[in-house]
Amino acid sequence: MPRKEDLTLHTRLKGTVTLSDNIENLQDEISQLIDTVNEKILPKGIPAKEKVPKVTRWSAKRSRLEVVIEGGRAHVAILRLKNFLAEELGRKHRIGVREVAVKEYTVRLAPKEKIPFEKIGYLRDQLAILPEISDVNVTEQGVALSYKEISLPTIRKGTLDRVIAHCRNIIIKGMEIQTLAMKVTKIKPGTILERSKRKKLTFNEDPTEVGAKLGWIKEFPGKGQHIYTPPLSKLFRIMTNTLVNEVALKLGFQEFLLPKLVNIDIYRKMKYLEGIPEGLFYVCPPKRDPELFEVFKREVRLTHEIPAERLRQGLEEPRYVLDATQCCPFYQFIEGELVRKEDLPIKAFDYSGYTYRWEGGAARGLERIMEFQRIELVWLGTPEQTENIRKQIVDETKKVVEKIFDLEWRITVSDDPFYMKGRIAEEREIKLPDLPTILLEAYLPFRGPRKEDSSWLSLASFNNHGEHFVEAFSVKETKGRTLFTGCTGFGTSRFVAAFLAQYGFDVSNWPQKMREKMLPVPEVPKFLTWPSA
Amino acid sequence: MPRKEDLTLHTRLKGTVTLSDNIENLQDEISQLIDTVNEKILPKGIPAKEKVPKVTRWSAKRSRLEVVIEGGRAHVAILRLKNFLAEELGRKHRIGVREVAVKEYTVRLAPKEKIPFEKIGYLRDQLAILPEISDVNVTEQGVALSYKEISLPTIRKGTLDRVIAHCRNIIIKGMEIQTLAMKVTKIKPGTILERSKRKKLTFNEDPTEVGAKLGWIKEFPGKGQHIYTPPLSKLFRIMTNTLVNEVALKLGFQEFLLPKLVNIDIYRKMKYLEGIPEGLFYVCPPKRDPELFEVFKREVRLTHEIPAERLRQGLEEPRYVLDATQCCPFYQFIEGELVRKEDLPIKAFDYSGYTYRWEGGAARGLERIMEFQRIELVWLGTPEQTENIRKQIVDETKKVVEKIFDLEWRITVSDDPFYMKGRIAEEREIKLPDLPTILLEAYLPFRGPRKEDSSWLSLASFNNHGEHFVEAFSVKETKGRTLFTGCTGFGTSRFVAAFLAQYGFDVSNWPQKMREKMLPVPEVPKFLTWPSA
Repeated sequence: MPRKEDLTLHTRLKGTVTLSDNIENLQDEISQLIDTVNEKILPKGIPAKEKVPKVTRWSAKRSRLEVVIEGGRAHVAILRLKNFLAEELGRKHRIGVREVAVKEYTVRLAPKEKIPFEKIGYLRDQLAILPEISDVNVTEQGVALSYKEISLPTIRKGTLDRVIAHCRNIIIKGMEIQTLAMKVTKIKPGTILERSKRKKLTFNEDPTEVGAKLGWIKEFPGKGQHIYTPPLSKLFRIMTNTLVNEVALKLGFQEFLLPKLVNIDIYRKMKYLEGIPEGLFYVCPPKRDPELFEVFKREVRLTHEIPAERLRQGLEEPRYVLDATQCCPFYQFIEGELVRKEDLPIKAFDYSGYTYRWEGGAARGLERIMEFQRIELVWLGTPEQTENIRKQIVDETKKVVEKIFDLEWRITVSDDPFYMKGRIAEEREIKLPDLPTILLEAYLPFRGPRKEDSSWLSLASFNNHGEHFVEAFSVKETKGRTLFTGCTGFGTSRFVAAFLAQYGFDVSNWPQKMREKMLPVPEVPKFLTWPSA
Repeated sequence: MPRKEDLTLHTRLKGTVTLSDNIENLQDEISQLIDTVNEKILPKGIPAKEKVPKVTRWSAKRSRLEVVIEGGRAHVAILRLKNFLAEELGRKHRIGVREVAVKEYTVRLAPKEKIPFEKIGYLRDQLAILPEISDVNVTEQGVALSYKEISLPTIRKGTLDRVIAHCRNIIIKGMEIQTLAMKVTKIKPGTILERSKRKKLTFNEDPTEVGAKLGWIKEFPGKGQHIYTPPLSKLFRIMTNTLVNEVALKLGFQEFLLPKLVNIDIYRKMKYLEGIPEGLFYVCPPKRDPELFEVFKREVRLTHEIPAERLRQGLEEPRYVLDATQCCPFYQFIEGELVRKEDLPIKAFDYSGYTYRWEGGAARGLERIMEFQRIELVWLGTPEQTENIRKQIVDETKKVVEKIFDLEWRITVSDDPFYMKGRIAEEREIKLPDLPTILLEAYLPFRGPRKEDSSWLSLASFNNHGEHFVEAFSVKETKGRTLFTGCTGFGTSRFVAAFLAQYGFDVSNWPQKMREKMLPVPEVPKFLTWPSA
């Protein structure tokens, strides 16, 4: 595993230096100045193991000098170039520098040897939420960040250096998680364990776009949220009830109603505040401050705007998070309890409402949303029971997906057991299963060919947590025998998205059992102004 | 309707002035000093229309003078008394004042004529969230606030004067809402329109306590939230499915899936930020600030605590609220649309998850909770359609409640149409229905006798909003014909609480249809440490 220092920085910067006068007739002099910059100015003070940036191309037209700088910290190099030009051209020709602009900037962090970075889920998630970056590209050759139009203050404040340093950390941490997953996962992450046969799919458009045109969905303000209208709600209800009946109830799971607004301290115990605090929604109750709220109401009434600072003063600290896991209140339910092996397993399921993940700019379509429905199965048992229950769930799920939904699916080994994110820095040894997380994925034709991983959408995960939560929530067996927990989340919002991506909106093209359940198709409410199709 | 000035302030204060020496042998002198205080000191500068406070009782024991002061601003009077005593006793006997303490303080705001304050829901809600008050008593003679142990700084900072002024405002505003409700409500609020016959109920304990002992519920940290275990979840599912099938689907309502995390600006448009901002949960997404969150994670990992200030810095302004109404996203769905009368009515229902109200200290048991399930029906139509749909819903609901749930119920006229709270200061005239809100209520035997309003729990409200939301969300009919909206919320969490309050946990005592649906009763998970019974 490489250390931070082994990730070499490669950059490419396109920028412009605008001068106070025409320099077209100073071509030769400029050429000499740039040679001097490359030979004497840019190498100054660069440590031996770092690459020296160089001006590799330039052109002078009217009063503008356009340059390409490649190598190490090119964003610093362009400032040095500017200072040098200002000094030299000022002295000899009384020409000053009016403006410096960076038009494009690509930063690549590359390891010495190829590493399958693109398989590391943690890396994808973390890089997606870096600020102000226009594009991120992860390949086995490294991670490339692209910027457009960087302002001078951003460069001067050292923001780019901090982003690069942070990015090195993310890469190293991603690889550590990967290694941990590799260590506990006896089968190589990314392995496809099983797949359905190739199916005749009748659709290859993006279901979010078509669904919006037909009025099966309507966007809700705030990214990553939708209103489902009657036809989509009916499909959702069909798939939900099928999974509840054919998997959860069939296997003897009992319904619980679990809260979705969760005391933030439970999230700390689950170690999610050490793992994914930037992926949660935080909830603040109002203070008891009637006078403040009287003023607030008056301001809203008069201005028709929301006085943000007043509101902030009127709120408590974030005391809750919106549940991102759905199984979390179950661990609180068993916290500190003493159980007999003979009373195990305990098998619970919940489908009482939405759970939430903050996706920032990464939210997309019907399939990657911030507010989503899920059926969550969670269980407590001996290690054998826990693994066996997971196996039964996978078996019953395959039957549903194959014989009722008729999806094109595959089952893979996850590279990214979500519950381990907070455990990365832990030293204590706990028992973990051979295979922490396996995934059910469905093919999305509109995304591209089957051979690309990015054409597959994860619909459900089947997790065996080992002792992770049992330890965090202090659950004990009377005679000290080992307890494991497991959970399965059926992402019903994603089942719906995947089904539509494979079969589209014309119900006559649907697989027979689904068509029968869907008929008669409920109507979309009609306005003169909506929907568009 | 009285103005603020017509609410007379009556107070009664019990306090102690502790002196630096024994004053038991100065009884006569104290008596004279107190007469002087009453005649000359306390009346100073009190406006003619205000009551002058008077010391009405006193006793001097050892170094303590105990007093009762009654009349106007008694909290100011005790300070004047103290100053006068310090001056007089100091001059004549070199006795100083060590301490002044207020032990009990009752503040009553009374109108000239009796007014049925206790019927004004707004008043109850608002007074319940006043800070530091030990008791609030609302009768037709006025509103009485009781304090215990008030500190001197509280008096000196003028907090009491502000609370009294604020309380006058609340009373006046509550009466304005009442008047508005009276104006639009053709039947007197509080009227019982209909009631079931008296039933043989088999239970009179508090279902929250018994349910917790039996393990049908478990408290969740954070007041006003519970985990429902399998038996309670089954009862919940039975009542939910019955109402969905026998009311919503039977009347042709179509399912929608409505978001529960709502952009705060939609709440502004609904005028709830002018109405009940202190009753909402506010949601903040995290900022894009990876560096801050790296520090945050490290702090959590090292300290096992949550660094509140760091977290606050890492969050955006409150950008969302947790939906308190459940119908709210529907108005966003129809916002700005143009509809033809021929395509009406539109009838939607949602039961996709929890909605939320911040109840502060008022949360209680299974029946007044912060996170609750509801089936929400909402519709758009002509005024005739809107009223007619409401009538149909009430009729079908009565059948379910009578013939399946077998509850003892009544239907009343609400004094407190929730959606009007933000409208109070509006000047624009809109069309409103004759009867904005009627309620379905169930009898809770453990609360007391049937004749007390407080023994009844509201389970559902049936609302006709008139043009309120149509105007706020700019929905138009092609030919400009009038549009109304209506909504009904079935508080399924409360249906469950009321059913258990009437029939208890022994299923063999349940009404026949409910017993049949409930059998076999699922088991509660067994621990050595829980449940207690």
